[in-house]
Amino acid sequence: MTSLPLRDADTCRYDLVSLGEVMLRLDPGEGRVRTTRTFRVSEGGGEYNVARALRRVFGMRTAVVTALADNEVGRLVEDCMLTGGVDTSLVRWVPYDGVGRSVRNGLNFTERGFGVRGALGVSDRGHSAASQMAPGDVDWDHLFGVLGVRWFHTGGIFAALSASARAVVGEAVEAARRHGTIVSYDVNYRPSLDNGSLGLPDVDVAIGVPDVRKFPDLSVAATTTRRVLSASRNDFGAVAWSPATGVVRATERTGLEVLDRVGSGDSFASGLIYGLLTGRPLEIALEYGAAHGALAMTTPGDTSMATAAEVMALAGGAGAAVRR
Amino acid sequence: MTSLPLRDADTCRYDLVSLGEVMLRLDPGEGRVRTTRTFRVSEGGGEYNVARALRRVFGMRTAVVTALADNEVGRLVEDCMLTGGVDTSLVRWVPYDGVGRSVRNGLNFTERGFGVRGALGVSDRGHSAASQMAPGDVDWDHLFGVLGVRWFHTGGIFAALSASARAVVGEAVEAARRHGTIVSYDVNYRPSLDNGSLGLPDVDVAIGVPDVRKFPDLSVAATTTRRVLSASRNDFGAVAWSPATGVVRATERTGLEVLDRVGSGDSFASGLIYGLLTGRPLEIALEYGAAHGALAMTTPGDTSMATAAEVMALAGGAGAAVRR
Amino acid sequence: MTSLPLRDADTCRYDLVSLGEVMLRLDPGEGRVRTTRTFRVSEGGGEYNVARALRRVFGMRTAVVTALADNEVGRLVEDCMLTGGVDTSLVRWVPYDGVGRSVRNGLNFTERGFGVRGALGVSDRGHSAASQMAPGDVDWDHLFGVLGVRWFHTGGIFAALSASARAVVGEAVEAARRHGTIVSYDVNYRPSLDNGSLGLPDVDVAIGVPDVRKFPDLSVAATTTRRVLSASRNDFGAVAWSPATGVVRATERTGLEVLDRVGSGDSFASGLIYGLLTGRPLEIALEYGAAHGALAMTTPGDTSMATAAEVMALAGGAGAAVRR
Amino acid sequence: MTSLPLRDADTCRYDLVSLGEVMLRLDPGEGRVRTTRTFRVSEGGGEYNVARALRRVFGMRTAVVTALADNEVGRLVEDCMLTGGVDTSLVRWVPYDGVGRSVRNGLNFTERGFGVRGALGVSDRGHSAASQMAPGDVDWDHLFGVLGVRWFHTGGIFAALSASARAVVGEAVEAARRHGTIVSYDVNYRPSLDNGSLGLPDVDVAIGVPDVRKFPDLSVAATTTRRVLSASRNDFGAVAWSPATGVVRATERTGLEVLDRVGSGDSFASGLIYGLLTGRPLEIALEYGAAHGALAMTTPGDTSMATAAEVMALAGGAGAAVRR
Amino acid sequence: MTSLPLRDADTCRYDLVSLGEVMLRLDPGEGRVRTTRTFRVSEGGGEYNVARALRRVFGMRTAVVTALADNEVGRLVEDCMLTGGVDTSLVRWVPYDGVGRSVRNGLNFTERGFGVRGALGVSDRGHSAASQMAPGDVDWDHLFGVLGVRWFHTGGIFAALSASARAVVGEAVEAARRHGTIVSYDVNYRPSLDNGSLGLPDVDVAIGVPDVRKFPDLSVAATTTRRVLSASRNDFGAVAWSPATGVVRATERTGLEVLDRVGSGDSFASGLIYGLLTGRPLEIALEYGAAHGALAMTTPGDTSMATAAEVMALAGGAGAAVRR
Amino acid sequence: MTSLPLRDADTCRYDLVSLGEVMLRLDPGEGRVRTTRTFRVSEGGGEYNVARALRRVFGMRTAVVTALADNEVGRLVEDCMLTGGVDTSLVRWVPYDGVGRSVRNGLNFTERGFGVRGALGVSDRGHSAASQMAPGDVDWDHLFGVLGVRWFHTGGIFAALSASARAVVGEAVEAARRHGTIVSYDVNYRPSLDNGSLGLPDVDVAIGVPDVRKFPDLSVAATTTRRVLSASRNDFGAVAWSPATGVVRATERTGLEVLDRVGSGDSFASGLIYGLLTGRPLEIALEYGAAHGALAMTTPGDTSMATAAEVMALAGGAGAAVRR
Repeated sequence: MTSLPLRDADTCRYDLVSLGEVMLRLDPGEGRVRTTRTFRVSEGGGEYNVARALRRVFGMRTAVVTALADNEVGRLVEDCMLTGGVDTSLVRWVPYDGVGRSVRNGLNFTERGFGVRGALGVSDRGHSAASQMAPGDVDWDHLFGVLGVRWFHTGGIFAALSASARAVVGEAVEAARRHGTIVSYDVNYRPSLDNGSLGLPDVDVAIGVPDVRKFPDLSVAATTTRRVLSASRNDFGAVAWSPATGVVRATERTGLEVLDRVGSGDSFASGLIYGLLTGRPLEIALEYGAAHGALAMTTPGDTSMATAAEVMALAGGAGAAVRR
Repeated sequence: MTSLPLRDADTCRYDLVSLGEVMLRLDPGEGRVRTTRTFRVSEGGGEYNVARALRRVFGMRTAVVTALADNEVGRLVEDCMLTGGVDTSLVRWVPYDGVGRSVRNGLNFTERGFGVRGALGVSDRGHSAASQMAPGDVDWDHLFGVLGVRWFHTGGIFAALSASARAVVGEAVEAARRHGTIVSYDVNYRPSLDNGSLGLPDVDVAIGVPDVRKFPDLSVAATTTRRVLSASRNDFGAVAWSPATGVVRATERTGLEVLDRVGSGDSFASGLIYGLLTGRPLEIALEYGAAHGALAMTTPGDTSMATAAEVMALAGGAGAAVRR
Repeated sequence: MTSLPLRDADTCRYDLVSLGEVMLRLDPGEGRVRTTRTFRVSEGGGEYNVARALRRVFGMRTAVVTALADNEVGRLVEDCMLTGGVDTSLVRWVPYDGVGRSVRNGLNFTERGFGVRGALGVSDRGHSAASQMAPGDVDWDHLFGVLGVRWFHTGGIFAALSASARAVVGEAVEAARRHGTIVSYDVNYRPSLDNGSLGLPDVDVAIGVPDVRKFPDLSVAATTTRRVLSASRNDFGAVAWSPATGVVRATERTGLEVLDRVGSGDSFASGLIYGLLTGRPLEIALEYGAAHGALAMTTPGDTSMATAAEVMALAGGAGAAVRR
Repeated sequence: MTSLPLRDADTCRYDLVSLGEVMLRLDPGEGRVRTTRTFRVSEGGGEYNVARALRRVFGMRTAVVTALADNEVGRLVEDCMLTGGVDTSLVRWVPYDGVGRSVRNGLNFTERGFGVRGALGVSDRGHSAASQMAPGDVDWDHLFGVLGVRWFHTGGIFAALSASARAVVGEAVEAARRHGTIVSYDVNYRPSLDNGSLGLPDVDVAIGVPDVRKFPDLSVAATTTRRVLSASRNDFGAVAWSPATGVVRATERTGLEVLDRVGSGDSFASGLIYGLLTGRPLEIALEYGAAHGALAMTTPGDTSMATAAEVMALAGGAGAAVRR
Repeated sequence: MTSLPLRDADTCRYDLVSLGEVMLRLDPGEGRVRTTRTFRVSEGGGEYNVARALRRVFGMRTAVVTALADNEVGRLVEDCMLTGGVDTSLVRWVPYDGVGRSVRNGLNFTERGFGVRGALGVSDRGHSAASQMAPGDVDWDHLFGVLGVRWFHTGGIFAALSASARAVVGEAVEAARRHGTIVSYDVNYRPSLDNGSLGLPDVDVAIGVPDVRKFPDLSVAATTTRRVLSASRNDFGAVAWSPATGVVRATERTGLEVLDRVGSGDSFASGLIYGLLTGRPLEIALEYGAAHGALAMTTPGDTSMATAAEVMALAGGAGAAVRR
Repeated sequence: MTSLPLRDADTCRYDLVSLGEVMLRLDPGEGRVRTTRTFRVSEGGGEYNVARALRRVFGMRTAVVTALADNEVGRLVEDCMLTGGVDTSLVRWVPYDGVGRSVRNGLNFTERGFGVRGALGVSDRGHSAASQMAPGDVDWDHLFGVLGVRWFHTGGIFAALSASARAVVGEAVEAARRHGTIVSYDVNYRPSLDNGSLGLPDVDVAIGVPDVRKFPDLSVAATTTRRVLSASRNDFGAVAWSPATGVVRATERTGLEVLDRVGSGDSFASGLIYGLLTGRPLEIALEYGAAHGALAMTTPGDTSMATAAEVMALAGGAGAAVRR
C-alpha cells in the first residue's frame, strides 16, 4: 500500500501545483533545427508538464508557479498555457527591458530525431524570469494554507537554473510539507544543466532517481526505464518502490514506436501522480505512468494529447485497433 | 473458377456503380483531432471508395449514386470527387436550408494514430442528404437497364444510416440483379453504426464477412485478416471462398508499415473486384485486393494513390526498391 | 452620462457571462471553401466572442454558458475555448451518439473574401447541443445570485437557433435582471437564421439595432456602421444613443483595410461593453468598440488578437507605425 | 444583336472544346520563385482555362484536346484536370523516355507579384508533348462531326509553340467551321512566345485583339482593358465589337484589388463565351466576361474559383458584403 | 557630383564589409506573435542586411563581421547567411554553455502588421555574442590592409548593444578610414535600444539622420521619408544631401502597398551604396535606394528578394505589369 | 594502407571540386507526386551532393562545375546551392530563351516512399544546360593548375547525360590527373539513364561498382550494400577494397529506419572521401561513409543535414539517445 496522507479535495483549490520554468519550444517537425525555415511552437517545462497533464488529460485542478517576462514571447507562452488549462493566476509577470538584457523568457529549440539520429535539444534559457525567482517572491503560506493544495510538484530542472531558484525550491518544499501537502520531485537529469549532483530535497515522492531502492526515507521512488533501440523505437518500462510494496515493475513495452520522446518522462510522472492522488495502489499508478509516458511519445511536442480513458485502456492492456 | 456472369462492357456505360454516402474527411495529419488547429480534407466513403479506386487506380468507368446538400461543403465534396474521376452525374443535390436542420453533408473527423495510439474517427453524419435517400429517388431501371452497369457495389455503412437507406439498398440490389448486374456488398462493420447485425442482402459477392465459409449461396465471400501490432505496424492478409475454389488465402504481409489504415478495406475490395471484373482467377483477384489494401495504407486519406501497375507488381512479389 | 448600475466586482465571480453557441470555424485562408484542401480551425460564436475578448483583450473574468456534444470535435472546441481564457465550467457536455443524429456540434465554414469577392459563410449547426438547450437546463439563480455576474450578454443568433433556445434567453434575461446584472443583447442579423424579426428582450443595452434612436427604453443602443467598398476595404464607424447623451458617433475610419471582417461586430460589442463596465462615458466606450472592431478585422478568425493597450491607442488616434 | 448560329445542344456531346497546352503551374504564394522552398501546384493553360471555367463555373460540358507525356508529372496534371471537371478522354498520352529528351510536360513557374513588384512568370515548356502535336494526330471530323461540338476555342499561345502546333490550329479551325462549330481564338500575347505577329485564323470570335474595330470580318471581337496601378490594384474593363452593335463597353472597375491576376484574361474569355453560348446580347456577355475576369483575380492560381451566380451578381452590380 | 574616393576593386577582396549583429527573425506570417503556433525564420540585422543585398541583389563581394554562439541556433543563422551569399569567414564562433547564461544568439520576434495594426517587433538579444564583441577581437588592419575592403558599413543598432560594441565600432571606423575605405553608418533609430542619442562616428556617409542638411562634414547624408497611412500603405520617398549637390529628392511613391516593411530602410541603404560604389550620381543612387526600399516592402522578411534589374527598372519609372 | 598521394592543402583553393548536374528536386513530402498540390524544393545531384556534404557537414572548401539556364528556376537552384555553401563561381550561366526550347534546368520530381511503396523519381532533365556542356567549356588547366584542387569527383549520372557530357568527363579526368588531383567516380546506376554499361574512366577511386574486387587498377573501390526490407527499413552496410587492405567491410546496420533514402549513396561517398582526404585508414573512412549514408536517410531531401561530429559518433558506435 502507498496510502499517502492526502489533504481533502474540498479544502483545497488545487489538486496539484507545479513550480518550474515554462519555456517556448520551437520544433522543426521532421527536419532539423540547424537547417529549418519553419518552427511549430508549443510550451513545455519539466515541472509544468505534470500540472498540464493532470489538468487536460486527467481532469484535475492545477496551477503553475513560475515567472515570465512581459513581452510578446511571454504572452505567447501564456496563450499556450491557457490551452493547457493550467491556472495562470500564480504567474509572476516581470517587466521587459525591450532587449532581454535583464530578463527574458526561456526558449527550447528541440528536434525529435529519427532512427539513428537522436533527438537533440538546445535550450536558450539564460537570464529567464523563472531562473531569477528568489525566496520571498511567492507567498507560500497563502498558497498552501489559505488556497489549499493537495500535491506540490517540482524538480531538478528548475532547481538547477540558479542558486536562487534552488532556494525557492527549498522554501516551497518546506512550506508545502508544513501545510500537509504531498511533495514530489523529478530529478530530470540534464547534462546541459549539470543537475545530476543536486541533492534530493525532503520530499515524499521522488521520480527519475537512478535506483529506486536507494531512498528508504521516501514514500515512493519511481523511474522510467528505457533502452534506445533508435530514436524511433525504444523499449520502455518503469519501476517503483515504496516501503509497503518494495520494488514493483510496470509492463515493459518493447520496440515501442516513438514519434517524439521529449516530455515522456513528465507524462510518466503525471500518470503516476494521478494514480497516487486518486488512491490507486502503487502497481496501478505505475502502470498509469508507464502507459501515459508511452502515449505521450506518439504525438509531437513536450506535452501529452492523450485522454484519461486512453491511458487507462492502454494500462489495462488494450491494443491500437481503430476506433470509429 | 470464379467466372461470374458479367455483362458485356460494350453494352454498359459503367463498369461499376457504387451506392453510398460520400463524406468530407478532416484529417489532422500527425496530430490529433482534439488539439489540432489545421485539417487536411479529402472525400471518402466505404462504398464510394471502391468506385474511386476502380476509376483512378484501375482505369475503369465508374459512378456513384449518392446525395449531397447543395452548399459550399457539398460543393467541396464534389470538387474532391471530380479529382477522384468518378462520374458525378448520378448525385442528387438537395437544397440547403442555410443552417443544417433539415439536411446536411456527412463529415468524418479521423486521425491516423501512431504506435500504441490507435486510429480514431468521429463521424458527424446525422441528417445527411445520403441518409435521407428513399426508395423511388433513383430510377434504377434506367441506370441498370438503359445506361447499363456491369457491377454494382454497396455495403453495410450506407445500409445502416437509416431505414430508408436500407430500403434503397434493397431496391437497388433487386434492380441490379434483375438486369444481370453483378452485386457486391461490403459489410464494413462499424461500432458507431451498430451495423454488425444487419443481414446480408441477396448479393453475388460479400466482403468483410466474419467467416468466408458460412455463406454457401454466394459466388464469392472474402475478407481481410489483420493483426494490429500497433497503429504503425500490422500483419495483413486476406482470405476468400468460392464454391469452385473453396477457401483461398492471399500472401500474408507481416509487420506491414502503416501510415494511415483508414480505407484499406475498401482498397482491398476494389482490388478484388477489379480482378473479378477482368476475369482473373479468385486467387489472383484476392492477391490484387491484398496488395492494394497494403498500398493504400502507405498514403494519407481514405482513398488510394496507387497505380494498377504498382498493385500488380506488389501482388507479384516485387519489393520496395527505389525506381528512378 | 451612461452610468449603468453595475454590481460590485468583489461580490461577483464573473465580470461578464455570455450565453450562446460556440462553433468550430473552418477557414480556408486566402482560398475558398469549395475548392480548398486545408482548413485552419478556431472557435467562434457571436455571443461567446464577447466573453472571449473581454477576457483575453481586456483582462476581465468571463465565462460562457453553452452546450457541446462530447466527442472529439466538441473537445477541439473546448481546446480552443481554453486558449480563449473563458471559464468553461458552465459548459453542458451532452453525450454523443457516435453519428450525430441526436446531437452535434455547430460548424462554421467561412471564407474571408477579397476585393470584389465578398466573405462567405456556411453554417452547419443543425441539431447542435446549443440549439437544444431548454429552460431549466441552467440554474440561473445560482449563477447570478450565488456566484455573481456583473454583466450578462446574449443575442439574436442564439435566440434564433430554436424555440427552446429563445426560451432560455428569456429565462436568463429575466433572472439576470432579477439579480441586478446588466444585460446586453446583440441583434446580430443573419439571413440564414432569419432572425431580423425576433423582438428584443427586456435588456439594458442593445447592439446591432438598425436605428439607435428607436429604443427609448434602453439604457444604451449602439451599432456599427459599415460601407463595404470591397471585401478588402470598408468605411467603418459606430453610433450609439443613451437617454443622457442622445446620439453619439465614433471616429469614422474610411478605406479601412480588411483581412477578415468576420467577428468585427462582436469585437465592437466587447470594446463598448468594456468601456461601460469600467465606467467610461459612452463616447469613450463607443470609441473603444469602434477601435476594437477595426483591429479585429486585421487578423484571421472570428476572434480578436488585439490588446487593450492597442485598442486604447487606436481609439486615442495612434497610427500604425512600427513598434520595436 | 450577336446571334451566332450555334449548333443545337442535343446534337453535340460538348458545349465547348479547347485546343491548347495544359501546364503545371508552380506558385510560391506570397514569396518569389527565386527564393522559395515550397510551391503550390495547379494546372493552367490559356486555351484550357476557358474549357475549365465553362465546366466548373458555368456548368457546361467541355473537353480539352491536348497531349501530355505519360509520367508522374503528366499524371499530376491529369489529377488537376479531373478536379477541373474537363473531359480528359481527348488527351493524347505520349510515352516518356525517362529523362525528358524527346518529350516533356510544360511547366510554368509564376509568382503573383505585390504592389510595385509585378507578377512574373517563367515557362519551361520546350519539347512539351503539346508543342509536338502535328496535323493528323486528331480525328477532327470524328470530334466535330460524330461527337458534336457547339464551340471550339483555341489561341495564340498554342499556335506559337511550334510550326506543327500552328498547323494543328489551322486544321482544327477549318474542320470546326466545316461542321458548323463556332470558333473563337484568343490572341493571348506573350513576349516569351513572340506571338504578337501571328496572323488571326479564320474564326468567328477573336479575343485579345489590340483594337476591336479592326476586324470587320469577325462576328465578335473583344478584349479586356487594364491599367496596372500596381500588381495589387488595377483598373479593369472590357470592350467588344460586333457588326450589329458596334463598339460596346463593360463596366469599368477602378482600383480593383488583385490577389493573382494570372488567368484573368482567360476568365474574361470564358464569361464572354458563356454569354454568347447562351444567347445573351453582346453587352451582357461582355459584362459576364468582365465580372468573371475580376473575380478570377481574387483567388490564387490561373483558374477561377467563382460560381456562375457570383459572376451574374457582380455583373449585375452586387457588392462585396458578407453572405452568411 | 558625389565622387567618393573609392579604393580600386582589384586590390580589395571585398566590395563591402558590414559590422553588426545577425539575428534570427521569427515571423508569424499574417498572424501575431502572441497567438501564433508557427513561425517562419530567416536572418536579419540592420547592418548585415546591407551586405546581403549588395551580394544577392547587386552581385557584389561582401562579408559580415559578427559573432555567434556556437549552438544549433547559431548554425541555423549561418545556414540562412549562406543563403544570403555573404562571406561568413569573418564570423567569430563563441562556445555555448548549454544554457545561454554567458552567451546567446540574438532573436527577433516580429510581425508585419496589417491596416490599422502596426508592425510589431520584440527583440530578445540580451547577452548575444555580437553584443559582447570587444576591441581587439578583430584584426582590422588585416581586414582593411591585407584583404582589402572598398566600403565599410555599420550603424546605430550594433553601436547601441553595449559599450564594448560601441568601442568596436570606433576601432573599426578608424581602421577603415586609415586604409582608405569609405565608411557609412546607418543611425537606425530604435526606441527599444534608446539609440537616438548616440553621436555619429567620423564617417563619410550617414544614413537615417533626421535632417540631411545638418551634417556638413559628411560626403553624403541620406534618409528615407515615410508617412504611414496604415501598416499596409505608406507614402515613401527619400532625401539626400552632399556638398556638391545640396539636397536632392527621390521619386515620392504615394500609397505604396506594403506587405512587410521591416528591413526597407536597410534596402534603401544598400541601393544607395550600390549607386555610390558604382560611381552613379547621387540623384541616381538615391533613386536606387528608394526603389530598392520600395521593392523590399513587397516580400516577407527583413531582407530583399529583388534583383538589380528590377531595382533599376523601378528607379527608371517602370510599372508593375506582368512579365512572362 | 590507402595513402593516396594528395596535394597539399595550402597550394589548393579547393579541397574538392565536383563536376555534375544540379537539379531542383520537387518533393511531395509524405504524399505522392501524382496527387500532390504542394512541393518542397531543394537542390541535388549525384556528383554535387558530395561537394555539398564535404562543405556543410565536414567543413571543407568545395566547388561545383556545372551549367544552369539563367532564369528564375536556375536562380532558385543557385539560392539552394548557396545554402549548401558550395562555391558557385564555376557555374556557367546560359542565357534562357524564355520557353525552354534550347536550354533548361534539370528537375527531379521524387517521392520518398513508405513501407511497401518504394521511393519513386521522375527526372525531367532533357536539354538541360548541364547536359549541353562540351569540351572546351571549362579551363581545366586553370582550375587544377592555377587555383588548385586536391580531389576531383564526378560520376555516371553526368556522364550519361549526353555524348558531350561524357567527353567533358574524359577531358576533366585527364586534366585532374595531369595536375596530381585525386579523382573519384561514382557509377551511380540509374535505369532511366541506362548508364550501367558506361565504362569507368581512368580514376583513383571508384564508388558504386558492383564488385569491389574487380578493379585491381584502382586505389580504392567501394560501394554500399543495401537490402530493402521496405521503403522504411533497410539493412545497410558498405564494402571497400584497396590493394593494401584487400576487402574491408563497414558495420552492417540491420533494420535501419529510413525517412528518405534518396542521396544516401552520395552521402556514403562524401563520408568515405572525407576519410581518405584526411588520411584516415580505409576501414575508418569506410565507416564514415556508412555512418553518413545512414544519417542522410533520416532527413528529407537529397542532401545531408548531419554534422561531422554526428557522423564520427555514429561511426564510433554511439546510439540515438536524446542530447539536451
